[in-house]
Amino acid sequence: MKSDTYYMTMLYDFYGNLLTDKQKDLFDLYYNEDLSLSEIADNIGITRQGVRDGVMRSEHFLRDTEDKLGLVKRYSNIQSSLDNIQDAISEIARVNATQVKNPTIAKNIDIIVNMVKLLSEQEK
Amino acid sequence: MKSDTYYMTMLYDFYGNLLTDKQKDLFDLYYNEDLSLSEIADNIGITRQGVRDGVMRSEHFLRDTEDKLGLVKRYSNIQSSLDNIQDAISEIARVNATQVKNPTIAKNIDIIVNMVKLLSEQEK
Repeated sequence: MKSDTYYMTMLYDFYGNLLTDKQKDLFDLYYNEDLSLSEIADNIGITRQGVRDGVMRSEHFLRDTEDKLGLVKRYSNIQSSLDNIQDAISEIARVNATQVKNPTIAKNIDIIVNMVKLLSEQEK
Repeated sequence: MKSDTYYMTMLYDFYGNLLTDKQKDLFDLYYNEDLSLSEIADNIGITRQGVRDGVMRSEHFLRDTEDKLGLVKRYSNIQSSLDNIQDAISEIARVNATQVKNPTIAKNIDIIVNMVKLLSEQEK
């Protein structure tokens, strides 16, 4: 049943706080701790089927929330634009370091590199 | 009662699709169309108090969702970093146009300017 773990953990990162504590626990054990349904069932004392239903309900809720809000998609688009900015500023940095050697350009390259780094970290 | 219209419409932009159609209609008439509670009540045939309760429930829900998810705040931080990137790339562009005149730098400035523009439009 476990499919698309990366995408599910991303949905959880964005919308997980809308789940109940119990739903969060199940989801976390299954997707982040990578326990099996049976292991979770043994650990928390409910049936395997109960664990399965709980996880599936959360998956459904998270997918449905993304269908409505699209904020994970919005962030993925931001990330790909940031990658383009990173490539372009690296190219400017390369030309400035090897040929132009202009200190004002160098200073502003640093600002952009730091901002892109900061933004990319926020997105993870 | 109407307070912080800008912030409320931003919350609505992010999370509004989690409201019911009826809640959306009330919110939209009040915050986006700027009708009064009485005008809305007359238009849709419920009491002024009913309109007021409905709008307040939506406000509460949207604020609560932001408390849990913080995605509006996350976006505001992105926007302020984008402003810094924009200032820095403008400065590089100014130095390149007036002194350096390097075509590779100019080409990569254009890429960054366009990406920042694209990202800023997505954030609005």
